Amino acid sequence: SLTVGIDSGSTATKGVLLEGSTLLRRFLCPTPFRPALAIEQAWHELSDDLAERPFLTLTGYGRQLVDFADKQVTEISCHGLGARLLMADTRTVIDIGGQDSKVIQLDEDGNLTDFLMNDKCAAGTGRFLDVISRTLGASAEQLDALVAGVEPHAITSMCTVFAESEVISLRSAGVAPEAILAGVINAMARRSANFISRLTSQGPVLFTGGVSHCQAFTRMLSSHLGADVNTHPDAQFAGAIGAALIGQRQRGR
Amino acid sequence: SLTVGIDSGSTATKGVLLEGSTLLRRFLCPTPFRPALAIEQAWHELSDDLAERPFLTLTGYGRQLVDFADKQVTEISCHGLGARLLMADTRTVIDIGGQDSKVIQLDEDGNLTDFLMNDKCAAGTGRFLDVISRTLGASAEQLDALVAGVEPHAITSMCTVFAESEVISLRSAGVAPEAILAGVINAMARRSANFISRLTSQGPVLFTGGVSHCQAFTRMLSSHLGADVNTHPDAQFAGAIGAALIGQRQRGR
Ligand code: SF4
Repeated sequence: SLTVGIDSGSTATKGVLLEGSTLLRRFLCPTPFRPALAIEQAWHELSDDLAERPFLTLTGYGRQLVDFADKQVTEISCHGLGARLLMADTRTVIDIGGQDSKVIQLDEDGNLTDFLMNDKCAAGTGRFLDVISRTLGASAEQLDALVAGVEPHAITSMCTVFAESEVISLRSAGVAPEAILAGVINAMARRSANFISRLTSQGPVLFTGGVSHCQAFTRMLSSHLGADVNTHPDAQFAGAIGAALIGQRQRGR
Repeated sequence: SLTVGIDSGSTATKGVLLEGSTLLRRFLCPTPFRPALAIEQAWHELSDDLAERPFLTLTGYGRQLVDFADKQVTEISCHGLGARLLMADTRTVIDIGGQDSKVIQLDEDGNLTDFLMNDKCAAGTGRFLDVISRTLGASAEQLDALVAGVEPHAITSMCTVFAESEVISLRSAGVAPEAILAGVINAMARRSANFISRLTSQGPVLFTGGVSHCQAFTRMLSSHLGADVNTHPDAQFAGAIGAALIGQRQRGR
């Protein structure tokens, strides 16, 4: 039977229509000023024209903003489940989104055993890359192309605000923007690796969330962690997939 | 005899010409891209036209950038000494500048017994107020006039970057900018009080550094600390005064 999962994040709203373990439809848009609007749009597009109304499960920050969901669940459980559908033997999920980052540990059967979350400091989230890229006039989509084969320049500031000033000073001092950009990605990857290492993470590792699409970041993260880091084209949908899976279980009862 | 102390901070460069315990001259300017230029200018203006060359002591981040100083000392010792000249019985110095904050504990004789320093996170420094004020179109000088008698709106984000987004959302939702501004000052005062409370601070307390000129902040800090917080018109010069005092001691030998 068909289920819909919608993950209303603070930066992006993600949704899927799931049948068994197949994604029939995907929805992705930046979360607008009123997050409920994006949830409504996602629900509309994902459930449009179906013979019967799919079971709807909501997760993410905005999950309580609409009243037409069949179920609401917290992100952490969804992310673990969704990650296992994308990569069946996942033991550690690293999720870095626009405004938070999480590390989730799973046992062999996929049950949650431990997790860490940061949503207090922008420096460990996609916001850091956004702010600094914008300072350098680059968009998030360009990052991989810009830093390919470039030696990273050292960035000493940990804080997004101070790093922004440091980047401006380096530009004024004539350092190439590509080298600064590579340095910024590297600094964030190092910081993320430190954060992740606070949990004794076990492989296989799946990296999800919007930042996982930046290959340069993934490469540097893997090198700082000293471990393989897997990604998946649907990695940004892990939370929504997990929500849809929880809907399947509920229906199955 | 005359001594000069110059405090080359990351945001402002401060300097004094001291005779005994009297400030004969003061110098204050924003630290330029090349901090050494401001140190040179301060030295020129403070020592100009004197019968004999005063002893020059440098402190602050930029203290090693020029080679004409007689002595270089770290900030912490200077701030304690300078605070005691401004208020003789000071036991706790709270210093909040543009890019760092410190708490310094002194015993009855003014000797340093303990200190805490933050220069990693912009949220605990003057930079927080700068960034958010600018977002609201206000300058640091206007803050006191704008928030007088205004009930602070709650600000939940601790991080400068996230608070900036929160402020923009509150504006879009129609909250008065004065109430947001008061809320921002209050949020930072609460955070600073938490930081300060990590040292068992003893009164009397002197609040120095650029942020001490914001009376609304000082009032809210005092209320969150549950203690009197004193300020001084020359509070921004505490580090420079301390450096000049160290010069006097050296000369006295
Ligand atoms: S370190 Fe910077 S980015 Fe992190 S909480 Fe502080 S102000 Fe925000």
